[in-house]
Amino acid sequence: MTKIPPIAPLNDATLHAALERKISQKTKPLGSLGRLEQLAIQVGQVQVSTTPALHQPQLLVFAADHGLAQEGISAYPSEVTWQMVDNFLQGGAAVSVLARQHSLALSVVDAGVNHGFIAQPGLINQKIALGTQNSLYGPAMSLVQCQQAVQAGFEVVRTLPGNVVLLGEMGIGNTSSAALLLMQLTGQPVEQCAGRGTGLDDAAFSHKKNVLIQVLKRHAEAGAEPWLAMAAVGGFELAMLAGAALQAASERRLVVVDGFIACVALLWAARLAPQVLSYCVWAHLSAEAGHALVLNELGASPLLSLDLRLGEASAAALVWPLIDSAVRLLNDMASFESATVAQRLV
Amino acid sequence: MTKIPPIAPLNDATLHAALERKISQKTKPLGSLGRLEQLAIQVGQVQVSTTPALHQPQLLVFAADHGLAQEGISAYPSEVTWQMVDNFLQGGAAVSVLARQHSLALSVVDAGVNHGFIAQPGLINQKIALGTQNSLYGPAMSLVQCQQAVQAGFEVVRTLPGNVVLLGEMGIGNTSSAALLLMQLTGQPVEQCAGRGTGLDDAAFSHKKNVLIQVLKRHAEAGAEPWLAMAAVGGFELAMLAGAALQAASERRLVVVDGFIACVALLWAARLAPQVLSYCVWAHLSAEAGHALVLNELGASPLLSLDLRLGEASAAALVWPLIDSAVRLLNDMASFESATVAQRLV
Repeated sequence: MTKIPPIAPLNDATLHAALERKISQKTKPLGSLGRLEQLAIQVGQVQVSTTPALHQPQLLVFAADHGLAQEGISAYPSEVTWQMVDNFLQGGAAVSVLARQHSLALSVVDAGVNHGFIAQPGLINQKIALGTQNSLYGPAMSLVQCQQAVQAGFEVVRTLPGNVVLLGEMGIGNTSSAALLLMQLTGQPVEQCAGRGTGLDDAAFSHKKNVLIQVLKRHAEAGAEPWLAMAAVGGFELAMLAGAALQAASERRLVVVDGFIACVALLWAARLAPQVLSYCVWAHLSAEAGHALVLNELGASPLLSLDLRLGEASAAALVWPLIDSAVRLLNDMASFESATVAQRLV
Repeated sequence: MTKIPPIAPLNDATLHAALERKISQKTKPLGSLGRLEQLAIQVGQVQVSTTPALHQPQLLVFAADHGLAQEGISAYPSEVTWQMVDNFLQGGAAVSVLARQHSLALSVVDAGVNHGFIAQPGLINQKIALGTQNSLYGPAMSLVQCQQAVQAGFEVVRTLPGNVVLLGEMGIGNTSSAALLLMQLTGQPVEQCAGRGTGLDDAAFSHKKNVLIQVLKRHAEAGAEPWLAMAAVGGFELAMLAGAALQAASERRLVVVDGFIACVALLWAARLAPQVLSYCVWAHLSAEAGHALVLNELGASPLLSLDLRLGEASAAALVWPLIDSAVRLLNDMASFESATVAQRLV
């Protein structure tokens, strides 16, 4: 069985108090930096430091194909997965533009794309297979493949520098796979979990929901057991992203989680090691049906809400400057004493 | 009377369609960049270009003191205004840190601080007086002073380079002044308009509301007439910020508006020239009581909601990278054609 790397809980009360005290002495009204203060405290706890620093942030897009896409549950054809991988690598995708803007190292992880890529800088080959099987007719992957994917996620992070990972995904059909995994893990109905993905119309969305209900029936016996559920309805990119998050947390790296699909992968990871969640920054709340549900399950409150529904780590990249700001404010702002500013009257 | 510079309406339907078409051809699901797409279209309209570019953004903090602060309506003593101006200039304030992070040129405008500053880089002297008068006993300023302040706002922007201004403020007592102006302009009651500012406790907040009700009674005759209302209960930094926004829009600069107080200044500016609002990007929705009200009056929907209540253009600085992203995505993303990515099936 796959051994999950140990993840330390973030429960150092002395450190927490020291971080709170440091922030309270900054030249601003108490608490007036709102969520950025909590974010700074979180980064300090992750790094066990009152002077945390962000080094070599790694933006990772896990890509894979889905057998279930054959059932017409996406607005786009499956070949868009590999075409977008090419686009990421050539610098033309949204996440490519955002990575350049913020000097984030962008790697695309081929977790199981139905295409043979030429080896090239920025592409990490961890292909498990040429896409999953169609979960309407059987498990999406074998248990062995599922474990391989998670372990590959560990390995991807182990080999990269830096103390922050920003995790996203690309894969035609993977909002369906994520919705199915969410249903398996939570027992919630399709209406709560499935949305229009990249933009299905009413008829196609209705068809998608019918397909998902049939898939769910087929895999009832897998239930909420994490490994069985992931193997039954998951995806290689979902399992590998979860593995990457677990490894990153075990190395005390900050984990920035993109949108709906990445959140479902983290919900799965948290079933194996709940402490992983303390290391996570949640980037974005989208309108995708299951997103509010999974965030609620995670106890997570994203920093942005910009009506994005793109995935590919775009929201994780967009939230990056806010994380950077939180750390800079903690380190670089003057205190009331150092700046000789009067404190509050009451 | 003060002549308001002419502001062109942003109603070029052909340009709007061209911008929409350009975005729809990018390699992403239609509409999937959400509010960033609207933002890119807005910047394109402001600059009359399908390839807009952001040059030399100017972060401006308008600072002034308030006679009303004598009534104990702030948690901080008045000398904090000049002490914080020093802190801005020395680089220790939150906005100083954020300006450095994003390479934003930061200028502090002395609109009427009760302190004699030594001339120095980054400080723009437009002092109207050493703070306003106490509006509990008479108008905060004369009509002449009010016009001087607005015209000084024009001049500040005229003399600065770039095509974006980011507008914020600092002044002990100015959440009260802004709440009063909001009450004058909208006729809404104190409960809807006044909040805890930088962090009043229950007793102090109750006292503040009582003071504001008395001030409002005294200036009932000013009503919602913009100049009379601003002179009666406003502040030099509010009037000057409004002038800066009007001038910036007339020069087709993008106007990034900070928090509650800056929003009230823009509501006032819009009473003189409603077209100014098309040039505005709203940075942040705070918990301050009147903020939701003024945003509703403005028809504005801020990009961020991070529980900030700091002012000093901190939210405007924090939202800057999102604006930059929107423009970069418009200009730098590949199209379906250029990247050879398949388009949607349905």
